[in-house]
Amino acid sequence: MSGKFFHGVLIAVVLSFTAVSVSAFAKEPLPSWNDGPAKKAIVEFVERVTKAGDLDFVAPSKRIAVFDNDGTLWAEQPMYFQLAFAIDRVKALAPKNPGWKNKQPFKAAIENDIDTLMKFGKRGLVELIMATHAGISTVDFERIVEIWIAGARHPKTGMLYRDMVYQPMLELLAYLRANGFKTFIVSGGGIEFMRPWAESVYGIPPDQIVGSTIKVQYEQQDGKPALMRLPELNFIDDKAGKPVGIHYHIGVRPIAAFGNSDGDFEMLEWVTSGTGPRLGVLIHHDDAEREFAYDRDSHVGKLARGLDEAPERGWTVVDMKSAWRCVFPEKCVAVTQSK
Amino acid sequence: MSGKFFHGVLIAVVLSFTAVSVSAFAKEPLPSWNDGPAKKAIVEFVERVTKAGDLDFVAPSKRIAVFDNDGTLWAEQPMYFQLAFAIDRVKALAPKNPGWKNKQPFKAAIENDIDTLMKFGKRGLVELIMATHAGISTVDFERIVEIWIAGARHPKTGMLYRDMVYQPMLELLAYLRANGFKTFIVSGGGIEFMRPWAESVYGIPPDQIVGSTIKVQYEQQDGKPALMRLPELNFIDDKAGKPVGIHYHIGVRPIAAFGNSDGDFEMLEWVTSGTGPRLGVLIHHDDAEREFAYDRDSHVGKLARGLDEAPERGWTVVDMKSAWRCVFPEKCVAVTQSK
Repeated sequence: MSGKFFHGVLIAVVLSFTAVSVSAFAKEPLPSWNDGPAKKAIVEFVERVTKAGDLDFVAPSKRIAVFDNDGTLWAEQPMYFQLAFAIDRVKALAPKNPGWKNKQPFKAAIENDIDTLMKFGKRGLVELIMATHAGISTVDFERIVEIWIAGARHPKTGMLYRDMVYQPMLELLAYLRANGFKTFIVSGGGIEFMRPWAESVYGIPPDQIVGSTIKVQYEQQDGKPALMRLPELNFIDDKAGKPVGIHYHIGVRPIAAFGNSDGDFEMLEWVTSGTGPRLGVLIHHDDAEREFAYDRDSHVGKLARGLDEAPERGWTVVDMKSAWRCVFPEKCVAVTQSK
Repeated sequence: MSGKFFHGVLIAVVLSFTAVSVSAFAKEPLPSWNDGPAKKAIVEFVERVTKAGDLDFVAPSKRIAVFDNDGTLWAEQPMYFQLAFAIDRVKALAPKNPGWKNKQPFKAAIENDIDTLMKFGKRGLVELIMATHAGISTVDFERIVEIWIAGARHPKTGMLYRDMVYQPMLELLAYLRANGFKTFIVSGGGIEFMRPWAESVYGIPPDQIVGSTIKVQYEQQDGKPALMRLPELNFIDDKAGKPVGIHYHIGVRPIAAFGNSDGDFEMLEWVTSGTGPRLGVLIHHDDAEREFAYDRDSHVGKLARGLDEAPERGWTVVDMKSAWRCVFPEKCVAVTQSK
C-alpha cells in the first residue's frame, strides 16, 4: 500500500468524524478527477441531494450508494482477480485431487490456460471458484484470503492486486461518505473473498458488502461451533441478481449506482428508475496505456448495452482516459505532487 | 408513540454524534433498569470493551451487537405479532381465495382459531406467512406493512403493537450505540415485515436487519422494473440459521447477543464462543402482571435449554420482573417521573 493511498484512507476515516475536515475537503473533493462532464455530474448530484431545504434534498438515511467491485473499484483484466486467487487455490489443492489433471475447468487452471478457462463463462467460473473454496470453515477461508491478498501480484503490472484499485474511486467513496452517504459494494464476486480486505482498502465494512455466496452450515467441530462452507451455490449476485441482492442486504433502493459492465445494467436500471434524484455511472475502460482498454467485445467486463442506452437513460459514462488524472494510487502520488 | 419514547429516540440520535452527551448519558445509562446482576453484567461488559489501552478493548468496527426481535425487543404473546399480521392478510385475501375456507392453516386463520394455528409449528407458520405475502411487489408489500403497523392493536392490551416494545431494551440499544456499537436485529421473523418500521421504533436501519426471506425476482412491469415476491422460501433465520444469517449479512462474529428463546440458542452460542470478551443475554419472561410469564412449556418463545445452560455458559438471564423498573414506554413515563 502506497503512502499516498494510506493517507487517502486516513483522510476518509477522519472525515467521517469531523465536520471541519468535511468543509475543507469540499473545496477539492476529487483531486484525481479532471474537470469535465463526469466529475461535474457527480458533484452536482451530491450537492443537489445534500442541500437542506431543497426539494431534491435526500435524508442521510436514504443516501445509499452502491458500487460494483471488479472493473469499478479495482481492475479486472486479463481476468477477475478472484479467478487468479481460485487458480492459486486449485494449484495448492491439486496434489490432493489427482483427478483434476484431466478434468475441466481444473485442468485449464493447473495449466494456466486462461483462454480455455474463460470459455466456461461467468457462471461456470463462479462455480469453479465456489467448488475450490468449500469444505473448510469460514474462519479458515478468511485466513487463506488474507494471506493471498497480502502477497499476490498481477502478472502484467507486477503490482500487488490490492494496489490495483482506482484512486479516483477511493476519493469518490470518501467524498460520498463525507456527504452522509453509506457506501456498499454490490459485486458478482464472492462476498467472502472481498470482506477480509475491503475495509482496509475501501473503508467499507463487511456488513456493507453484497456478493455471491455459497451455502454455509452451522456445525460442532471438536466441541466448538463452526460455520462450514458447503460446495453448493447459494446466490449469484450478478445482472438481475444485483437488485435482488440489494433488496436482501440493504432493503432500500439506493440513489446512486456505479458499475462498468453489462453485469451492472439491472443494478443501474433499478437504482435510476426510482423517484427523486438518481445517479447512474458507468466506468468506461478506454485507457490501454495506464490501465486497460475494452468494452463491447471483451469476455471480461463486457460493456455494450450500457454504452448504447446510457444517453437516453441519463447515465454518466466516465471515459477513464480523459476523466481521470491518474489511475492507481502509487501513480497518483507523483501526479498530485506536481499539481 | 408516546412522548417519552420519542424523546428516547431523539436522545439516541443525538448521542451518536456528540461526545459530550455520551459522557452525560454514561452517568445514568439505563434508567428503566433496576440495579442488580443483569444491569451490572451489561454495564461492566460495555465498560470493559470500550476502555482504551485495556487488554479487553475492542475496536469500534468490531463492536457488533445482535438482537432477536420477538420477545426480546417487543412482545410475542399470545402469538408472534407477524402472525397477527398474516391472519389479517388471510382475511383480507379470503374473498379472492374461496378454497381457503376448507384448507388449513388458512381455515384456522379465518376462524381466529389460534390454538389450531399454533399446532403447525414455527416453520409451518413462517410458510403460511410467506405464502400470504407473495405475488405482489416489494414496494406494495412495504406499504401494506406500514398501514398495518400504524393501526393494528393487540387483542389483550389494546395497545398498538408497535408500542409493545420494551423501554429497557430501547435504552440498551441507545446505550450500546452511544458506546460505538453497531446494533443489528437477527430475527426468525420476515425481514420485510420488520424493515418498514424498525428504524423509527428501534433506530435500526433496514440494512442492519437480518431475518427470514422469501425469494424475490427482478421483473419488468408496465415498462418499469419491480421486485416481485415469489411464493417460495429463501432462508429461515432461526435456530442454527441465525449464525448463518449473521455470516451472510454481517460477515463478522458479533461480541454481544440478546435473545429470549431456544430459537436464539445457537446465536448466543456462536457469539459467546469467540475469543475475547463476549456477552450473551437471555430475556426471561416471568412477569405476568406487567407483560407475560412463560418459558419451558410455551409454544411461543419456549426457553428451556437456554435456562439450563446459561450458568455454565456464563450467559446473563434478565428476569424481567426484578430487572426492569417498567416494561412498555407509555408505562415508563410515570415510573421515571416519580423517581
